[in-house]
Amino acid sequence: MKQINCAILGASGYTGAELVRLLEGHPTFVIKALTANRHAGKPMEEIFPHVSLANLPEMVRIEDVQWNNIQLVFCALPHATTQEVIKDLPEHLKIVDLSADFRIRDAAVYEEWYGKPHGAQHLQDFAVYGLVEHYREEIKKTNLVASPGCYPTSALLPLIPLLEEKLIDPSSIIIDAKTGVTGAGRSPKESSLFAEISEGMKAYGIGHHRHMAEIEQELSLAMGEDVTISFTPHLVPMNRGILSTIYVSTDHFVGDIRDALKKRYQSDTFVHVLDEGQVPETRYVRGVNHCVMSVFPDRHASRVIIVSVIDNLVKGASGQAIQAANLMFDLSEDDGLKGLPFFP
Amino acid sequence: MKQINCAILGASGYTGAELVRLLEGHPTFVIKALTANRHAGKPMEEIFPHVSLANLPEMVRIEDVQWNNIQLVFCALPHATTQEVIKDLPEHLKIVDLSADFRIRDAAVYEEWYGKPHGAQHLQDFAVYGLVEHYREEIKKTNLVASPGCYPTSALLPLIPLLEEKLIDPSSIIIDAKTGVTGAGRSPKESSLFAEISEGMKAYGIGHHRHMAEIEQELSLAMGEDVTISFTPHLVPMNRGILSTIYVSTDHFVGDIRDALKKRYQSDTFVHVLDEGQVPETRYVRGVNHCVMSVFPDRHASRVIIVSVIDNLVKGASGQAIQAANLMFDLSEDDGLKGLPFFP
Amino acid sequence: MKQINCAILGASGYTGAELVRLLEGHPTFVIKALTANRHAGKPMEEIFPHVSLANLPEMVRIEDVQWNNIQLVFCALPHATTQEVIKDLPEHLKIVDLSADFRIRDAAVYEEWYGKPHGAQHLQDFAVYGLVEHYREEIKKTNLVASPGCYPTSALLPLIPLLEEKLIDPSSIIIDAKTGVTGAGRSPKESSLFAEISEGMKAYGIGHHRHMAEIEQELSLAMGEDVTISFTPHLVPMNRGILSTIYVSTDHFVGDIRDALKKRYQSDTFVHVLDEGQVPETRYVRGVNHCVMSVFPDRHASRVIIVSVIDNLVKGASGQAIQAANLMFDLSEDDGLKGLPFFP
Amino acid sequence: MKQINCAILGASGYTGAELVRLLEGHPTFVIKALTANRHAGKPMEEIFPHVSLANLPEMVRIEDVQWNNIQLVFCALPHATTQEVIKDLPEHLKIVDLSADFRIRDAAVYEEWYGKPHGAQHLQDFAVYGLVEHYREEIKKTNLVASPGCYPTSALLPLIPLLEEKLIDPSSIIIDAKTGVTGAGRSPKESSLFAEISEGMKAYGIGHHRHMAEIEQELSLAMGEDVTISFTPHLVPMNRGILSTIYVSTDHFVGDIRDALKKRYQSDTFVHVLDEGQVPETRYVRGVNHCVMSVFPDRHASRVIIVSVIDNLVKGASGQAIQAANLMFDLSEDDGLKGLPFFP
Repeated sequence: MKQINCAILGASGYTGAELVRLLEGHPTFVIKALTANRHAGKPMEEIFPHVSLANLPEMVRIEDVQWNNIQLVFCALPHATTQEVIKDLPEHLKIVDLSADFRIRDAAVYEEWYGKPHGAQHLQDFAVYGLVEHYREEIKKTNLVASPGCYPTSALLPLIPLLEEKLIDPSSIIIDAKTGVTGAGRSPKESSLFAEISEGMKAYGIGHHRHMAEIEQELSLAMGEDVTISFTPHLVPMNRGILSTIYVSTDHFVGDIRDALKKRYQSDTFVHVLDEGQVPETRYVRGVNHCVMSVFPDRHASRVIIVSVIDNLVKGASGQAIQAANLMFDLSEDDGLKGLPFFP
Repeated sequence: MKQINCAILGASGYTGAELVRLLEGHPTFVIKALTANRHAGKPMEEIFPHVSLANLPEMVRIEDVQWNNIQLVFCALPHATTQEVIKDLPEHLKIVDLSADFRIRDAAVYEEWYGKPHGAQHLQDFAVYGLVEHYREEIKKTNLVASPGCYPTSALLPLIPLLEEKLIDPSSIIIDAKTGVTGAGRSPKESSLFAEISEGMKAYGIGHHRHMAEIEQELSLAMGEDVTISFTPHLVPMNRGILSTIYVSTDHFVGDIRDALKKRYQSDTFVHVLDEGQVPETRYVRGVNHCVMSVFPDRHASRVIIVSVIDNLVKGASGQAIQAANLMFDLSEDDGLKGLPFFP
Repeated sequence: MKQINCAILGASGYTGAELVRLLEGHPTFVIKALTANRHAGKPMEEIFPHVSLANLPEMVRIEDVQWNNIQLVFCALPHATTQEVIKDLPEHLKIVDLSADFRIRDAAVYEEWYGKPHGAQHLQDFAVYGLVEHYREEIKKTNLVASPGCYPTSALLPLIPLLEEKLIDPSSIIIDAKTGVTGAGRSPKESSLFAEISEGMKAYGIGHHRHMAEIEQELSLAMGEDVTISFTPHLVPMNRGILSTIYVSTDHFVGDIRDALKKRYQSDTFVHVLDEGQVPETRYVRGVNHCVMSVFPDRHASRVIIVSVIDNLVKGASGQAIQAANLMFDLSEDDGLKGLPFFP
Repeated sequence: MKQINCAILGASGYTGAELVRLLEGHPTFVIKALTANRHAGKPMEEIFPHVSLANLPEMVRIEDVQWNNIQLVFCALPHATTQEVIKDLPEHLKIVDLSADFRIRDAAVYEEWYGKPHGAQHLQDFAVYGLVEHYREEIKKTNLVASPGCYPTSALLPLIPLLEEKLIDPSSIIIDAKTGVTGAGRSPKESSLFAEISEGMKAYGIGHHRHMAEIEQELSLAMGEDVTISFTPHLVPMNRGILSTIYVSTDHFVGDIRDALKKRYQSDTFVHVLDEGQVPETRYVRGVNHCVMSVFPDRHASRVIIVSVIDNLVKGASGQAIQAANLMFDLSEDDGLKGLPFFP
């Protein structure tokens, strides 16, 4: 059986560890290199003991990877670091970048939201946004995928088809999103301590979270005109999961909205539009690459409410990255992504 | 020092237990009767061991309470049960009802949302809605307070002043609310088990939660015309706390909205409007009778986002009930309600 | 490829759901029948929405299973119910029983701990205790496996070898065990509610938990004489995981104890004895069929401390059941049981 | 009414914040100074927003406190830092130190466990161990109280009386202790992140935790000879609470053990010995200064099991410190420490 060797850059974070967990069950991709500059020289199980059952290479510095033996790179480095690394990688590599660095097409918009000029704008033109359900053909042909953010994935999957078909008022979109804490990463911060997070919740980044740029870019492309959204992220005391509650104005029936989504995703493995009255919960997708959504009527006849759930570490990060990589190597889209959610 | 004897009807639920915790520190109210029909004859500590430090009367059946010794009743019975009980109570009693039974003024609206005719409509005319900050004078004069629901409290405190002053578009109101699990009560249900709740979240009652009737009633009164809202409640894996994220359209500046709220609540002990940029979290109010809110600009210039937090068991239930009872007996409004939040 | 059809009796509990999750990835076993008497006629996803991605048969009543199409039965019914069901099953079936019904060899001991005579004592002689690492050959030859309890598994794996080799004082054994809440099952009880479990812990069944009978039986067999233990189970606010802290007196060095365990389990896939100083945590085994243990010196030179962790739903229940079934059908012991732990 | 001004040194940690919460309800002690060197110049609510309801002085550096206005100091600084600070404080102050710095009487033992010589050994002779129930008279007369550690408090309260009365075998003591995460403090460490702590548990410091020195010192004093213990601490995913499960050998009946404890603590406000069969849980003491314990028979007739619970931040730290301070100023022992546990 064919084997494709891959490297994970940034193995010391939660998305890196989730890539390892998922790739261990992948029929074709084999992990041949792991990098973590601060931890170079250690086995990965020293920082993530749960991976000790796997037979993994030692973590090294990025400059010490033997690239000629690698065909595929998952880049799970922090934002801004990534562009500096990727621009120097050998050309034979196919790259899936999980950071935000190549998601924003417009250099000015990037600079506005990220506070400094892009460091590898020449590569941006080749980057394909890795929302597989909407960029499948482009992903198959590119060498650089910018894997979507977690919040954007949960919001774009329901909204893009509705804007493409002009079923909703683009100026009316309000996305009230809730995430588990792995979205904040593994770096030690007081605000991420168990005692600070458990038994409470909060909103943050109200009205100015960077994922807004990414969401608005893709919604504007779908609509064919500039779309501005309202977006409020919230932090919830759980490890995984994003639930986005989306409010939109429409002059269509709620059933028409639901049918449009059902039709759009009928042949997609990982997107599920529930029947009338069924309510998605984050536990339906814990540990798997699926997005589940449902459409509800509102007291206001001209408004509908859409609820969409994903696992932020899987469909919102590592799983979606593998889904895209499968396409880049002409594999079955769900290779390494089968199996049921983890519950309870 | 004056002593006022009180009874708690329905001591076996979380709001009953929270009444006991708060009243133990009250300078004037003394618990003289506890009822719990299923548990009559037991000490309360048998079902709530944490109250064993208090010197409490045994739980009895409602019909066995010696009413002539009681001046004040907190009624923490289930919805619909309450009206049957209250209509037969002696007339000398002052009553604060924590159920929904006397919150809805209009008999038809009550029947529409609660599925059957009201059983004590003749008392409804005397009932005063117990949102103290807005019904202070009426509460002082009544013998029957309908203490507000938890979600309504978190939403009405920011919205009523804005509608009264016509600062926002009443048709634009969207309330995305998140609650801890004590809101679901203590009855054993599969959906409330630890293993079902932890590590996940969900929306429920989308577009048709009973608290909508209560919120719309009070907003309509504030506005002077019928107001219809969008309201989505969510269940979060924590014990206490409600966080409501409220989206409204306005042609006023965000600073004007904030100033209006600050001015309206400047002399209220329990309502706090934060300065620009400060973000409320549920842990700011865990265990206390306070509501903290803040106003934020949105990417849409014509929209503002308001975040409001309370403890659903305190300001959303037992604390607010005591706050009203203090007024009914001409006591200081914060008697028994002092002290700092419990953190962590 | 060979296919073996199996039935899960009692699909509405957590161990039933975990069997489904694990069997979905099994190369040979295929689920052909699911029973849940209270829920007969429903799809399993109605009570466990997270399994909706699987293509499962509808749940039926036990008497409606088409047994001629089935070769393997996993019985996840409540204790005492099981024996009544199993005694009437067709003889061609291989059965793995996850209840306690066939774990106790001595009828008198069973009656003492379970409060009534055994209902199928004639089958008890054929039952093999399913602790694979110690009954491998017997399991291969039997048609009825009594799969071990969760606490016993975590305690017996470290203790049996030490007693067999007479390395520890059998009268000194103290097992202080801590479990996640799925061990209490899915039936709605006040004591299992989120609000009762979270933010607290407790001991229970102190000195008289039924798992003691099972542990003492197997330790006595290992020692060749009656062994009496001290055992205290505790409930911890997490979903999965058992951590047993075991105190034993010995006149051997701690290194000798560790070496004996390492040697005993060197060819076992699912048991891991850590090196000096390494500490097992329940998250190392969340979702997988592994047991990790470590041996520590104590301040008392004559005492050692052993810490052992498993996932109560996997190695402590559904995973171990599949491990035994693999042997009964001459499959690889880890079929369906590969993969990394789920973290975070 | 008399007012006693106090300072809290180290207000940025969890014990500092808990001192503030408790002292806000104290009838005599008034907080006049707060120190937090890293945060000097900020209001305390900037780092602990939940205290914003209190009227507190700004945090300053220790050297900037106006000592002549202060009578009482609570020192909640890190271990080792404390001795350097305390030795330079003015002599008129009464000091309650919550660190471990003055708990160990023997300089050699201190150095053995803390890795360096004590920096203020001359003060050690004046320090009284602040376990109020056993050092009440000494505390009344001293100016320096070394407030006990959390684990020691939970273990010493049940064990000291049993050793004083020679009811148990001192060589048999095994303390299996479980704590919530606030015991690890508020400094940002990867191991204290929500995603690392939730949904799992672990043992740590097995056989060599520093609290052993403190426990053994006090048990040896009680017994009149050297006592060596086995002690294993565990970390549990909850914020507060310690549950110690203690195994001891005895030739007395379990009822005698229980009676001895009941008699010893009959006039103590904060220690409760439960009746036969009653099981303590950490939630019985969440937020309060009480210790609840119970004694159980074991399968081994010669062994009994004792379970003891406290809130690590209250009776295990800030509450016990206030209890001692009350005695130092001849106040009622429970001033500022009344009220019921916080549940749920």
